[in-house]
Amino acid sequence: MSDNFDPRRRQVLLGSAVALASASLLGLSPLSLAAEMPLPDYVNWKTPEALIVHSANTLETKRDAIGTSIVTSNEQLFIRNNLPPPPPSIVTDRDAWTVAFQGVKNPRSISLGELKTLGVQTVASVLQCSGNGRAFFEHEASGTQWETGAAGCVFWSGVPVKAVAEALGGIVDGLPYMTSTGGEELPAGLDPKSLMVERSVPMRALDQAILAWELNGEPLPLAHGGPLRLVIPGYYGVNNVKYVKQVAFTAEQTDAAIQASGYRIRPVGQPGAPDQPSMWEMNVKSWITQPLKQVKAGPVAIQGVAFGGAKEVKGVEVSLDGGKNWQAAPFVGPNLGQYAWRPFVLIVDLKPGNYSLMSRATDVEGNTQPQEGLANERGYGHNGWRDHGVGISIV
Amino acid sequence: MSDNFDPRRRQVLLGSAVALASASLLGLSPLSLAAEMPLPDYVNWKTPEALIVHSANTLETKRDAIGTSIVTSNEQLFIRNNLPPPPPSIVTDRDAWTVAFQGVKNPRSISLGELKTLGVQTVASVLQCSGNGRAFFEHEASGTQWETGAAGCVFWSGVPVKAVAEALGGIVDGLPYMTSTGGEELPAGLDPKSLMVERSVPMRALDQAILAWELNGEPLPLAHGGPLRLVIPGYYGVNNVKYVKQVAFTAEQTDAAIQASGYRIRPVGQPGAPDQPSMWEMNVKSWITQPLKQVKAGPVAIQGVAFGGAKEVKGVEVSLDGGKNWQAAPFVGPNLGQYAWRPFVLIVDLKPGNYSLMSRATDVEGNTQPQEGLANERGYGHNGWRDHGVGISIV
Repeated sequence: MSDNFDPRRRQVLLGSAVALASASLLGLSPLSLAAEMPLPDYVNWKTPEALIVHSANTLETKRDAIGTSIVTSNEQLFIRNNLPPPPPSIVTDRDAWTVAFQGVKNPRSISLGELKTLGVQTVASVLQCSGNGRAFFEHEASGTQWETGAAGCVFWSGVPVKAVAEALGGIVDGLPYMTSTGGEELPAGLDPKSLMVERSVPMRALDQAILAWELNGEPLPLAHGGPLRLVIPGYYGVNNVKYVKQVAFTAEQTDAAIQASGYRIRPVGQPGAPDQPSMWEMNVKSWITQPLKQVKAGPVAIQGVAFGGAKEVKGVEVSLDGGKNWQAAPFVGPNLGQYAWRPFVLIVDLKPGNYSLMSRATDVEGNTQPQEGLANERGYGHNGWRDHGVGISIV
Repeated sequence: MSDNFDPRRRQVLLGSAVALASASLLGLSPLSLAAEMPLPDYVNWKTPEALIVHSANTLETKRDAIGTSIVTSNEQLFIRNNLPPPPPSIVTDRDAWTVAFQGVKNPRSISLGELKTLGVQTVASVLQCSGNGRAFFEHEASGTQWETGAAGCVFWSGVPVKAVAEALGGIVDGLPYMTSTGGEELPAGLDPKSLMVERSVPMRALDQAILAWELNGEPLPLAHGGPLRLVIPGYYGVNNVKYVKQVAFTAEQTDAAIQASGYRIRPVGQPGAPDQPSMWEMNVKSWITQPLKQVKAGPVAIQGVAFGGAKEVKGVEVSLDGGKNWQAAPFVGPNLGQYAWRPFVLIVDLKPGNYSLMSRATDVEGNTQPQEGLANERGYGHNGWRDHGVGISIV
């Protein structure tokens, strides 16, 4: 939300419509206007001031819109949809949504209404797109040029997948993957496998996987996968299948393109293939959210967020000189568990001059962010601390 | 937020405008139309479906809008303003807002920009109006007839008041109260003391008091006291002074009516007076949020929230038979600290019939909700478990 919401929103919309029309006349690409694009209709309830609209299906949270109170509101949370969402009619009777279970001893479809009686868990976790930080790679990886804002920390409520599987007689032996299918509508005339959102994750993900119907205390919005989304805390966003209509325990990973060749780590220039590492567990990461520009000399609060990905974050350090010297920065607020991020605030007295602010997180197993991100064809998983640094001047 | 936000909101607004016009013609009281009143302009960014509009300054969260994912979103959080908020211009340059400190060794005004460099803390806490539950008292206490929805659990970020006092040389000795003044504009021609929001709390509140500028990850909205609000976790809402413009450590409690005679616990029929207990620390409380109506026989998830008020909640029990028998209900999700509430979910197999669902919380010091609320003139602090119960039929 924002104060004076409607008037400002209208100004933004009007301004953008005019800009867009002019651009069209001038033959400019939409990219050059990204910052001014209006919110797409299906997310018109989001806060325009907090978001960068890359396209109808890719909206990034502005770096300095992330605060210190841990949760990212639904209104500020990024959007990355591989396909347009289904029609809003699917959230008119939420409890009627069904998900088909396969690979269990008694396979059947279960309604959301029934799922709610099988168990409820609430977990705070970082939701992050595989390509968050892509803009920082030196090679021009194709895809949305996310900087830091394809990530947020939110509360999910839902039923553990494990509890559902148990209610269905247990998982059939010897099936090493959980394969889930999204409910997006596929355009006619194209090979469904080339477009469908169907992801496989290893069975270890079952320890924390939930089928979620609530986001930050509200019914899960359609734009974020409502009425029902598979959420695997600690895993990259793509594994969190929206409008989930099937969960199958399977012998093989799906051959859908999004799994077989997509979201694979490989050297720059190489095509994707099933034998390359898939974007499953997230790595340790942090970034500074404020200050991002010139500030006055004196005490300055350097703020940011740090998380361990699939493991709990242990600590974070801040450097004022581009990584030569580091000092520990304290976390603020309660620890929401291993999958959540922790805001940090370091207050330092700064004299006039230029500073290269960096942050570097370490998880409980001792993994520390590397200086450089690992270059890879699609620009996934960037957690290098140097590229996430911020140059500021103190006056 | 809600899906299909704009269209539905417009329908609500139109519907209400028509209803209101008809009511005016028919001479109906606004109360009878409460559920259909549109959102006031200054909170038009809230979710209409989740709220009951009692008046422009009193909006209640619907009982079943509270979910299991702990936080109450800004869009669903109740509103109770003693006076209309100041103009939105006070949040255009948030960091320029100033608060005057008195009763410290070096008294002066401090800008919000400077406060942010004195320390940052994040705390989750229940925000609850003193009159929450007033509708359940048998006598007709004047004031908004809140049921359960003048409460929410939110994250605040700000600077500890203690840190600010230390930066100003420390608190002058022998001052037992912290007295804070709100920045609301007062109507001309009336005694300011009769209307102003100025509250005194005992110095023990300093242990947890913060000056907050962020709510649930977003800049504190004007409607909730932005740019700066005094937040005292564990204390009733009225003590959390909005648009706070002065914090003074004082020898006496303020003689403003809101403190001297208002928000005092006294027998029904008696006027308020300074020697009666003030609405400071909150008491232990819980209520069921779902189900509230008829449901199908079989496994049913009974959900609710429980909190200890100023102390941490230890546990909660649920009764299906109006309080004859009780069973422990498990909490879900992480513990956000002593001032937060905890959602609970108890799944029980219910046969057809009528049930009186009750919940009863106990704090870490062993205080348990009483069966009856303590009747008092203004209907404050109701935490009796019987009146908070829910009658449902299983078919």
